[in-house]
Amino acid sequence: MSDVASSPPPVSVLGLGSLGSALARALLTAGQPTTVWNRTAGRADDLVTIGASQAPTAAAAIAATEIVVIAVADEAAVRGVLGSAAGELAGRVLVNLTSGTPEQARSLAEWATAQGAAYLDGAAMSGVRLVGRADALFLYSGSAEAFTAVEGTVSAFGSAAHLGADAGIASLYDTALLGVNMSLLTGFYHALALVGSAGVDAREFAVVATGYLPFALGLLADHARQTVQGQYPPDEGTLDVLASAVDHLVTTSARAGVRTDVPDGIRALVQRGIDEGHGEHGPASLVEVLG
Amino acid sequence: MSDVASSPPPVSVLGLGSLGSALARALLTAGQPTTVWNRTAGRADDLVTIGASQAPTAAAAIAATEIVVIAVADEAAVRGVLGSAAGELAGRVLVNLTSGTPEQARSLAEWATAQGAAYLDGAAMSGVRLVGRADALFLYSGSAEAFTAVEGTVSAFGSAAHLGADAGIASLYDTALLGVNMSLLTGFYHALALVGSAGVDAREFAVVATGYLPFALGLLADHARQTVQGQYPPDEGTLDVLASAVDHLVTTSARAGVRTDVPDGIRALVQRGIDEGHGEHGPASLVEVLG
Ligand SMILES: NC(=O)c1ccc[n+]([C@@H]2O[C@H](COP(=O)([O-])OP(=O)(O)OC[C@H]3O[C@@H](n4cnc5c(N)ncnc54)[C@H](OP(=O)(O)O)[C@@H]3O)[C@@H](O)[C@H]2O)c1
Ligand SMILES: NC(=O)c1ccc[n+]([C@@H]2O[C@H](COP(=O)([O-])OP(=O)(O)OC[C@H]3O[C@@H](n4cnc5c(N)ncnc54)[C@H](OP(=O)(O)O)[C@@H]3O)[C@@H](O)[C@H]2O)c1
Repeated sequence: MSDVASSPPPVSVLGLGSLGSALARALLTAGQPTTVWNRTAGRADDLVTIGASQAPTAAAAIAATEIVVIAVADEAAVRGVLGSAAGELAGRVLVNLTSGTPEQARSLAEWATAQGAAYLDGAAMSGVRLVGRADALFLYSGSAEAFTAVEGTVSAFGSAAHLGADAGIASLYDTALLGVNMSLLTGFYHALALVGSAGVDAREFAVVATGYLPFALGLLADHARQTVQGQYPPDEGTLDVLASAVDHLVTTSARAGVRTDVPDGIRALVQRGIDEGHGEHGPASLVEVLG
Repeated sequence: MSDVASSPPPVSVLGLGSLGSALARALLTAGQPTTVWNRTAGRADDLVTIGASQAPTAAAAIAATEIVVIAVADEAAVRGVLGSAAGELAGRVLVNLTSGTPEQARSLAEWATAQGAAYLDGAAMSGVRLVGRADALFLYSGSAEAFTAVEGTVSAFGSAAHLGADAGIASLYDTALLGVNMSLLTGFYHALALVGSAGVDAREFAVVATGYLPFALGLLADHARQTVQGQYPPDEGTLDVLASAVDHLVTTSARAGVRTDVPDGIRALVQRGIDEGHGEHGPASLVEVLG
């Protein structure tokens, strides 16, 4: 948008906990002039050593730059920090990477807009260790213009996807993906317990599982498309066939002395799908059962 | 093992259903002399057109080659086919890609060994569509010598991993990985229902989920190592922290009118982990709860 694309715009980072420090470090590494502020001032020391300017107050940090990134404990902390500096917000683009609910994001968006700021809500999806690398994923939602204005800046944090104008959507994706992640992990933990009962080394199983799962990931786009079309071809088997395969998993687990919580849950869901008439359909028909 | 590495050994394929036909086709594509047999003879026609030799009986197919691949409906069919040709098995390497239980695999291994054959049990992990490509995964267990003898041959099917001398292990991995796959998919289906309730297009969510999940896959090796060491550092949060995140997922889902089966199951498991003293540990501690 700017005709000085070669000189990166200065950025302020409010909050220098695990996430905020990693964000500031990534900006500095990318050569972006960075002002930092943290409630406990000492946490800025390391960043100052590598080139950050430390602001004495949140208001001063906000006044210093057009783009303001905030990552503090929770929504209450965001309101506390920004409330103390509301007079400085007009004309800024505010990028809030603090975790919160969709409702909190929407309400902050409204408040920030009333102060004359453009608001983007963000979710750091890949923890702190990967920040600054392309494989760190950041999701954003809220003002599309704000996203365009900061896209070059936030690309210093990792890959950036803008999900739409509703500020609450990034948080909803965050919550939904936590469920996907934990489903995968609990399924993996069950598998480790099962193969472990036969003396298999967990690390060997992990290598095979990691090699296998891209196949499963490859199904997601196709299954999503099926739900949009409302048609569930049984390319990888019907729910009826799956029911017996999962029965076998339950029996094998029980015989091995492994708790069956994880496969029992899957089996119950598959049964619900069959009961609702999807026995001859592919597994993505379960979305209709859940939704 | 052979000093005629340049001329691939001839192979027989018994059973030309979806899987067996794909296997035979992959062998022919790789330039391996291939003999085929199927109970219903007509199913061999297409393969003969592209260069397969058709044997009149299973015994004739087995007699024709040193390496024999079988993929029929189930263990009973395997016993029926091989029982009729037991006299021909001595000196052969038998690769059984029919699905079955670990017990069935071990019992077939014993029987085949008694006939003088070397036995490998296999599991085709990636369906039929990918057969013949490196991203199709095949797991094998049983005689290590047999695996060495056929490795070059079965590489025509896809990637091949040998999991050990216990013939039952490939089947156990197959069952365990079904659980991982279905956990991932049911978690994804729940997420689709959740974001769908906010009007998000399932296909857009799938793109983001597919981009996000390699991060989760990247955790598996680390979590497996943790279970071997019996130490569960909370790098991605403690079970206590996870419990509130999953509570949030449950509440958000319920408010959106989405069934909470999937997150309820995760929440109950996390609670069990906390109850058993892992509240301050990372999530891989759940393996101890399940095992
Ligand atoms: N760490 C991650 O892997 C990660 C990943 C994704 C999302 N997040 C989210 O990012 C946010 C920050 O997480 P974090 O890991 O960086 O947390 P953290 O290490 O615990 O740091 C918390 C930060 O918030 C500040 N803070 C807390 N209450 C405040 C208040 N009332 N006024 C002003 N500042 C206040 C703290 O300042 P003091 O130094 O003065 O205490 C500190 O800078 C959270 O919402 C978290 O859920 C974190
Ligand atoms: N398809 C897959 O994606 C896939 C993936 C992994 C594993 N598998 C496993 O591979 C095996 C074969 O699956 P498939 O999909 O190829 O099955 P399929 O298409 O239904 O074919 C079954 C095959 O078994 C033969 N057969 C059945 N009963 C027999 C008997 N009593 N004697 C001789 N032959 C008999 C059939 O011969 P006729 O033609 O004469 O009926 C046919 O060749 C199964 O154990 C399956 O679980 C399949």
